[in-house]
Amino acid sequence: MTKTIAILTGGGDCPGLNAVIRGVVRTAIRCYGWRVVGIEDGFDGLVGNPRYRELTLGSVRGILQRGGTILGTSNRGNPFSYAVEKDDGSTELIDVSAQVLDNLRQIGADALIAVGGDGTLKIAQALYERGVPVIGVPKTIDNDLRATDITFGYRTAVSIVTEALDRLHTTAESHQRAIVVEVMGRDAGWIALESGIAGSADVILIPEIPYAMERICDALEARCQAGSRFSIVVVAEGAYPIAGDKVRQKQAAENFGVERLGGIGAAVAAELNECLGMETRVVTLGHLQRGGSPTPYDRILASRFGVRAAELIAASSFGQMVALKGQSVTGVPIASAVAQLNRVDPQGELVRTGESLAINFGR
Amino acid sequence: MTKTIAILTGGGDCPGLNAVIRGVVRTAIRCYGWRVVGIEDGFDGLVGNPRYRELTLGSVRGILQRGGTILGTSNRGNPFSYAVEKDDGSTELIDVSAQVLDNLRQIGADALIAVGGDGTLKIAQALYERGVPVIGVPKTIDNDLRATDITFGYRTAVSIVTEALDRLHTTAESHQRAIVVEVMGRDAGWIALESGIAGSADVILIPEIPYAMERICDALEARCQAGSRFSIVVVAEGAYPIAGDKVRQKQAAENFGVERLGGIGAAVAAELNECLGMETRVVTLGHLQRGGSPTPYDRILASRFGVRAAELIAASSFGQMVALKGQSVTGVPIASAVAQLNRVDPQGELVRTGESLAINFGR
Amino acid sequence: MTKTIAILTGGGDCPGLNAVIRGVVRTAIRCYGWRVVGIEDGFDGLVGNPRYRELTLGSVRGILQRGGTILGTSNRGNPFSYAVEKDDGSTELIDVSAQVLDNLRQIGADALIAVGGDGTLKIAQALYERGVPVIGVPKTIDNDLRATDITFGYRTAVSIVTEALDRLHTTAESHQRAIVVEVMGRDAGWIALESGIAGSADVILIPEIPYAMERICDALEARCQAGSRFSIVVVAEGAYPIAGDKVRQKQAAENFGVERLGGIGAAVAAELNECLGMETRVVTLGHLQRGGSPTPYDRILASRFGVRAAELIAASSFGQMVALKGQSVTGVPIASAVAQLNRVDPQGELVRTGESLAINFGR
Amino acid sequence: MTKTIAILTGGGDCPGLNAVIRGVVRTAIRCYGWRVVGIEDGFDGLVGNPRYRELTLGSVRGILQRGGTILGTSNRGNPFSYAVEKDDGSTELIDVSAQVLDNLRQIGADALIAVGGDGTLKIAQALYERGVPVIGVPKTIDNDLRATDITFGYRTAVSIVTEALDRLHTTAESHQRAIVVEVMGRDAGWIALESGIAGSADVILIPEIPYAMERICDALEARCQAGSRFSIVVVAEGAYPIAGDKVRQKQAAENFGVERLGGIGAAVAAELNECLGMETRVVTLGHLQRGGSPTPYDRILASRFGVRAAELIAASSFGQMVALKGQSVTGVPIASAVAQLNRVDPQGELVRTGESLAINFGR
Repeated sequence: MTKTIAILTGGGDCPGLNAVIRGVVRTAIRCYGWRVVGIEDGFDGLVGNPRYRELTLGSVRGILQRGGTILGTSNRGNPFSYAVEKDDGSTELIDVSAQVLDNLRQIGADALIAVGGDGTLKIAQALYERGVPVIGVPKTIDNDLRATDITFGYRTAVSIVTEALDRLHTTAESHQRAIVVEVMGRDAGWIALESGIAGSADVILIPEIPYAMERICDALEARCQAGSRFSIVVVAEGAYPIAGDKVRQKQAAENFGVERLGGIGAAVAAELNECLGMETRVVTLGHLQRGGSPTPYDRILASRFGVRAAELIAASSFGQMVALKGQSVTGVPIASAVAQLNRVDPQGELVRTGESLAINFGR
Repeated sequence: MTKTIAILTGGGDCPGLNAVIRGVVRTAIRCYGWRVVGIEDGFDGLVGNPRYRELTLGSVRGILQRGGTILGTSNRGNPFSYAVEKDDGSTELIDVSAQVLDNLRQIGADALIAVGGDGTLKIAQALYERGVPVIGVPKTIDNDLRATDITFGYRTAVSIVTEALDRLHTTAESHQRAIVVEVMGRDAGWIALESGIAGSADVILIPEIPYAMERICDALEARCQAGSRFSIVVVAEGAYPIAGDKVRQKQAAENFGVERLGGIGAAVAAELNECLGMETRVVTLGHLQRGGSPTPYDRILASRFGVRAAELIAASSFGQMVALKGQSVTGVPIASAVAQLNRVDPQGELVRTGESLAINFGR
Repeated sequence: MTKTIAILTGGGDCPGLNAVIRGVVRTAIRCYGWRVVGIEDGFDGLVGNPRYRELTLGSVRGILQRGGTILGTSNRGNPFSYAVEKDDGSTELIDVSAQVLDNLRQIGADALIAVGGDGTLKIAQALYERGVPVIGVPKTIDNDLRATDITFGYRTAVSIVTEALDRLHTTAESHQRAIVVEVMGRDAGWIALESGIAGSADVILIPEIPYAMERICDALEARCQAGSRFSIVVVAEGAYPIAGDKVRQKQAAENFGVERLGGIGAAVAAELNECLGMETRVVTLGHLQRGGSPTPYDRILASRFGVRAAELIAASSFGQMVALKGQSVTGVPIASAVAQLNRVDPQGELVRTGESLAINFGR
Repeated sequence: MTKTIAILTGGGDCPGLNAVIRGVVRTAIRCYGWRVVGIEDGFDGLVGNPRYRELTLGSVRGILQRGGTILGTSNRGNPFSYAVEKDDGSTELIDVSAQVLDNLRQIGADALIAVGGDGTLKIAQALYERGVPVIGVPKTIDNDLRATDITFGYRTAVSIVTEALDRLHTTAESHQRAIVVEVMGRDAGWIALESGIAGSADVILIPEIPYAMERICDALEARCQAGSRFSIVVVAEGAYPIAGDKVRQKQAAENFGVERLGGIGAAVAAELNECLGMETRVVTLGHLQRGGSPTPYDRILASRFGVRAAELIAASSFGQMVALKGQSVTGVPIASAVAQLNRVDPQGELVRTGESLAINFGR
């Protein structure tokens, strides 16, 4: 009898999700003759009345180059800790994982591919431990997952940020301004680091290297005296000042309403403004970094992940997650994959290259 | 004897400024055999010790496609009302226009081309009235100047915003969110209107049409019931609610710290969140809209402006400003040009086209 | 009773066709409550068994930014002169317009919107004369139609060519080469002219200005002696040498197999190679110029055309074609529109601007 | 005494060359206090009177994002086999390497960085063997060099080709055509393979997999019967038919003037036209693939190569070439690097992934 496999996408959207779905569907139908069912809105689509639809070759036509996910996604919907509203208006977290298991059975799913980040993969692992034949596909636009060399979507984000830096350069230069650009990266500074090098930033601040404001001001003043009257500062949203500065930054935040202004970027700008006496502007890229058509690299990597996920089902390698290791895409245990962060090495080649190129990291 | 002409760029930077400079320099040197001097940092470069340099054919090589201005610009430097710091630390506004006249004489400028917006053109007109042979070139990224059909830089801004809307669509759709995008346009809503139509916005709010929040919520709810669970709302920074709502908006601003959050976009998002119960995000494009390489249209229009400015000098048509009228670039009096706003007609074809396409304008 | 309107797209594809379709469908359904039927593959879809499908609001979702046409198009299918294969293998042209009329009746079409170029509009006019309530929408990527100030798709093509020229500049400069770029424009040189100015070409050859090879070689040699050791030459496919050169060009074509090499671009390159003794390369952009997402301007103009076409039906203004005149989209008789070419004025402002910018037109 | 290092770029231009130069200059001057001299036009600048200029921090300002090379390049100029014209007009190849050595001495170069492909690196190795302290930087836009995992420029080329395929899709689909796109790749099919997967090609032909025309026609006919009436075929310029077909291809080439038409792409198109009876078009991307701004990845990789090249000089590791190995940039002997081709593995994961995605490789 024909196998039925289900696929869902969870967590924040990311360029390449559709390429994964297309890779799974084409491989499943053409190579194995399976039926594919797409669950809508992540795990949320498996709670209550299940929301799903069949995915045919026609369903995935023309989606390789489209950003987002045709299945929808959701940040809610952890079935082991699902928020339900009680009669008195308060919210309670309950375990609805039994519904998920029931729904998968009802759909007739012989296997489930869960595409998502840390949160989604943890749910996938928990379901696997309860007997669901699960395959994981890692998604993290920040590139902060240790188990895979790199993930799809990340390079597209670097590309978008670099293009923004190219644009902001002309304004900074024409007006002799410092422009602070806040980018994604709560725990890992990869986006700031790579787009900063590619976009010719003068300062890059990342969570892995707590910064000293004095160093930054010194560097920019030296730059100014050498005749460059403008500066581009790239700040990962998770960057923070070293110990001594922590209190100062907190105060700055309070004084300037930084929390509301979008965080660390504004705080850095306010301090720069003070120490340099230079006009300073902040740009927060926010959701612009997630959207749009994936770069060729991300289309290919995501397609490879999708094809390999289907192959792992064919090999009954459940509990595995696809991952790029060197030149090849392989399977690794989901369990080993979650919660292991891939962070920038402050002494690594990339940071040192940045420093040789005259980039200041606030140290 | 060879004529010397000076050129400066004032006000906010704008894609196409370099194309104007190149057009002036090539025409002046090749067609007329003049010498060209570039004043640095707008009128500020003519106060105190003048800051300028000769512009040769080599100086303008490769700049056609570059954003910003190789001459630098400045928002300061109105010589009729120039801020100087006094001994007691306070600031005084004094008239330093005599310095400007002296410096132009010292440079040996037989004519001055001033490229800039309303502020720059007013100074140009005042200098013309004191005997300086001035030619104006209009620059307003918002397209809000009546005297010319369109200006360079505007279409590039529309292009950047449209690209951002294309990207945000995939995120809005995947997450079933409303995304509010705040764009430039203090007095005129052209950027919001054109990029909103081109980027398939569901709601467009512009200063020319005060909005009623209820209308917007009704429209988005109807959209939701028709099965589209996401929305893109484009808001010009100068948009505001109709009378009855004004107080409410003020309150919202206070409650949500809107002033700090970047203005009207956040206020609209907060209200949408409340009335729709839909996750809402705000993106403020800010300086991203000014930067980068001009579109072909803007490169051509700015080149035409530069060539024509030099020709107006050759014809001794001082006190004139270049302007696009229909298919041709012509000269109009600077005096008639300033302070006449080009605003969107709320009953005009473009707005009505938007409404036929199902866009809601909050009315 | 509800009206049914039909729409078809004919001739070469062009960015913006989908925006027209979307504009028609949204306006017809939302504003007038009509039914819309999409004919497939141009007039060919009305010959034999008609090929069509209903177009709903859902059919046009997400197509605004997509190139091509969801309806398909065809260069064949003139129903007044339709190619049919005879038993002996030869081809005969017969009049099948009666089938078209029958099929439109069978579909129940109360009106037909024909989107296309000169060929399509001529058929539309002929059908109108036989009683079909027709509205035309002009499409010509070359911008060679007199009846409308500009058409959609053209600016996208200029944009693509300009981007190609930007890219080729770096190669030409690094290798000290002349690069000849052949672009669309059989009867009118608009694409070559505008992209050449925007892309900083050194020579632009257009059908409106027959060129003298000596002038080009002189100009490029002068450029070389002034220190610029590379050149970009943009050639419209319809460009040709002035009288005396005609024979020479024909010979060159025969010698170098020019016809096969893609035409005039190769001929120019061969001659340049000879007169300059400089390495020369040819790039023929071909179909790259038609494809991809329309620019914001083209999305808006095409949307306006679509909306207005529906409005002309509502006003029963049949036999009319939508056209941009100054700032507004209006209706003009199809009859007056066809066969009136919009050509570059050799003495006009744009060409003179190019010459002031040091561009040589081979004269 | 301050060290002087020289740098040159040889062979075809490639996005990222300027980033290498900038990386070398910044590191040499800022980290080591050296002087840097840029040789013009590759090794050709070291023959006869040397052509060079000092490179300062100012010389490399703003070049990170520019394609091409500020130093110029040349395909001529192998000093061991240098073409000189004799009195009788014939050309002789002579050894002028002594001039190169003299010139390097005259310039006072303590080390030479040679950036280039196979040809350039071979010359570098030969000079090293004669005592010149040489460091190599590998450049091959085709990615066909075994000694480094990947080189700069390659991903930019893949990006350009993918964008072209995206555009051509809309035309192919609207017109129901097969479009054949010929791309770079004489010995290795990487560009065709990766851009074909990313650009959703239906057929990919590469030098590593000789193709059988019947297989391609069968695949496209099956595709047609499944309802997809258009096809995109990507052909590497070095692709060729399997044995039995070789003669046929040769004949086709002669019949259709293929050599002149630009090679294998036209031959494949002609055969497709015949076997499918479908309108077929050829697009040859040619020089478009080399130009323009490098992608962020290429900017970073090239910068790393530049920095590392300077560091290898500091470590006196002459005769080495920088290379990417896994995550780090390291030094490998130039000797071991040249002439070892990096070719696509016909049984490797990438080709198999393509096949799972329904791409036909003509086998």
